[in-house]
Amino acid sequence: LLLRRSRNRLREEVAKFLSEHCCPSSPLDADNVVVMNGCGSLFCAVAAVLCDPDDAILIPTPFYGVITEDVSLYSGVKLYHVPLDSKVLLKSSLPFHLTAEKLDQALQRAKHQGVNVRALVLINPHNPLGEIYTSEEMNSFLKFAKEHVLHVIVDEIYMLSVFGEDISFHSVLSLDRLPDPQRTHVIWGLSKDFAMAGVRVGVVYSENTDLVQALDRLGNLHGVGGPTQHQVALMLRDHEWVNDVFLPENRRRLREAHGFVSSQLTKLGIPYLHRGAGFFIWADFSKYLKEHSFTEELRLWRCFLTHRVLLSCGQAFSCSSPGWFRIVFSDQQRRLQLGLFTLCSMTHFLKCFRCCSL
Amino acid sequence: LLLRRSRNRLREEVAKFLSEHCCPSSPLDADNVVVMNGCGSLFCAVAAVLCDPDDAILIPTPFYGVITEDVSLYSGVKLYHVPLDSKVLLKSSLPFHLTAEKLDQALQRAKHQGVNVRALVLINPHNPLGEIYTSEEMNSFLKFAKEHVLHVIVDEIYMLSVFGEDISFHSVLSLDRLPDPQRTHVIWGLSKDFAMAGVRVGVVYSENTDLVQALDRLGNLHGVGGPTQHQVALMLRDHEWVNDVFLPENRRRLREAHGFVSSQLTKLGIPYLHRGAGFFIWADFSKYLKEHSFTEELRLWRCFLTHRVLLSCGQAFSCSSPGWFRIVFSDQQRRLQLGLFTLCSMTHFLKCFRCCSL
Repeated sequence: LLLRRSRNRLREEVAKFLSEHCCPSSPLDADNVVVMNGCGSLFCAVAAVLCDPDDAILIPTPFYGVITEDVSLYSGVKLYHVPLDSKVLLKSSLPFHLTAEKLDQALQRAKHQGVNVRALVLINPHNPLGEIYTSEEMNSFLKFAKEHVLHVIVDEIYMLSVFGEDISFHSVLSLDRLPDPQRTHVIWGLSKDFAMAGVRVGVVYSENTDLVQALDRLGNLHGVGGPTQHQVALMLRDHEWVNDVFLPENRRRLREAHGFVSSQLTKLGIPYLHRGAGFFIWADFSKYLKEHSFTEELRLWRCFLTHRVLLSCGQAFSCSSPGWFRIVFSDQQRRLQLGLFTLCSMTHFLKCFRCCSL
Repeated sequence: LLLRRSRNRLREEVAKFLSEHCCPSSPLDADNVVVMNGCGSLFCAVAAVLCDPDDAILIPTPFYGVITEDVSLYSGVKLYHVPLDSKVLLKSSLPFHLTAEKLDQALQRAKHQGVNVRALVLINPHNPLGEIYTSEEMNSFLKFAKEHVLHVIVDEIYMLSVFGEDISFHSVLSLDRLPDPQRTHVIWGLSKDFAMAGVRVGVVYSENTDLVQALDRLGNLHGVGGPTQHQVALMLRDHEWVNDVFLPENRRRLREAHGFVSSQLTKLGIPYLHRGAGFFIWADFSKYLKEHSFTEELRLWRCFLTHRVLLSCGQAFSCSSPGWFRIVFSDQQRRLQLGLFTLCSMTHFLKCFRCCSL
């Protein structure tokens, strides 16, 4: 039974909006859009539809840790980690650099352990690394997935929060030809790019009608209220405001805040990944650990917190080596200044191990 | 670990609103309110929290059938039916009359079959019967539940849609003393009483802090967006409009539409339950069935549909005897007239079995 989806204004506006910003070769189809109350619900529902209970989904680490709970809630689906190393192992490589080879190694290890992998999550731009995959990289990941009949969930929730002067982001939807369009599903939402997390609107774009119909059934419990649908549709169709006012100003503020925080980190001699996307800087505080352990990392995290500086520690992102922290910079300069001033004072103490008693 | 719930405007307005309309002996506490995106989500979540997988919940039949899917989705919880008879068995009884004795018989039968019953659902005002339980009746059901350590989920979603001239509704929250307040949970929402189903706002009121905290955890996936929370809070606190404009006019329209449809049914000689709550009339079309079966009921339902009259058949409410249909009358008179005119013509045909070939 092929259910005909009803005409829906919000889905149409989302399709138009993504057609404009993701640069696909042909306009996106509103019938391939599912809207739900937030991307958490989408991860829950997509995992439940794509996987059987106890199946696994590959994900490179570090990654936005909430996904772990989301994919498991409905169906007990587990994430299978692809650990990325913080060290530069090859001359050509970067820290935390993902390659299809690393995906393949993890998949083989999973198979060896009897874990049934059904899908792969890719976050692009990446949270917490701020990294952006090139089209070539993305293509190589998708080809790897096709070869092993894996679904790919591409989380592009920071798609419009790319602010670096000399970098550009290419949505997976812009690829000339997706290796396996029936198994490639893109997630986006308003919470980051429009700073509207509280409005609870997440979308998935997929050409797989089975997936779309299954998600529609679950949508009963994850629908977006009518008035919100109307307001969001109106906002998305206001191209002039979005393109000429909101996005440029948003990017300018992100660039400014990033510049401020990164220059301070440089002054403090704290290594960090210099990327130009997302709301955060991934910084290496490992030199302040008394020993190379996650227990020490947690102690440092508590030490920051005691001084009223809230950072997220690497363990929360399943990072494979201790000492990395995510610093969110999308805040007012006044507060960033205060936080960095505290951080600066603390690092002096930390160097003398004065903080160890905390 | 006792988690302190954050101050929330909507929860506070809901507590005030229910305090006004449910007439509790003391004002309701905002900390006992959980708000979710619709009562379907609440049924899902409450069932998952109160029950282990494969546990069962008692429910008298007929009942609003969607609950079956809702309670099972998260945790495989099943409903265990308490069949109410359409025949008058005792002189003092009414058709479809619920008693604590019937609940007890069903519970014993469930135990005998090895079914673990953890809770009871009561719908008041009842969908599809339109029945309202007296405080004495409700008390007897709650005492039965307490005796057997059952949670009671009281669905009062039609609480303010009581329009009968000489009937009155008493919320379970108005009882002087609940037999088991820790196991009594009330569900209400905007979808019926404010005709705002598309806004997706359902609430539960419970003094059980374990339940409330567990629901809050699931609320992550079932939250109500900020702008909607704000709009709904503003509406609920507008006592003047709600009490002097909206509710009286809503009741007047419901009364008028009910009067129109019920008088037509009387003219057509179709028996129905004459109640004064809800949006529907529960009517007995069994005389038009060629034989006393649900197959015939479905055939009659299709026959109505072919003539563009959409009624809900008893089977959809797990009614124990075939031939009953729910007629929704909360519509414009023009459309009710058209539907009833068609129904009237059809009944003449049906009497002559002319419709049997459909």
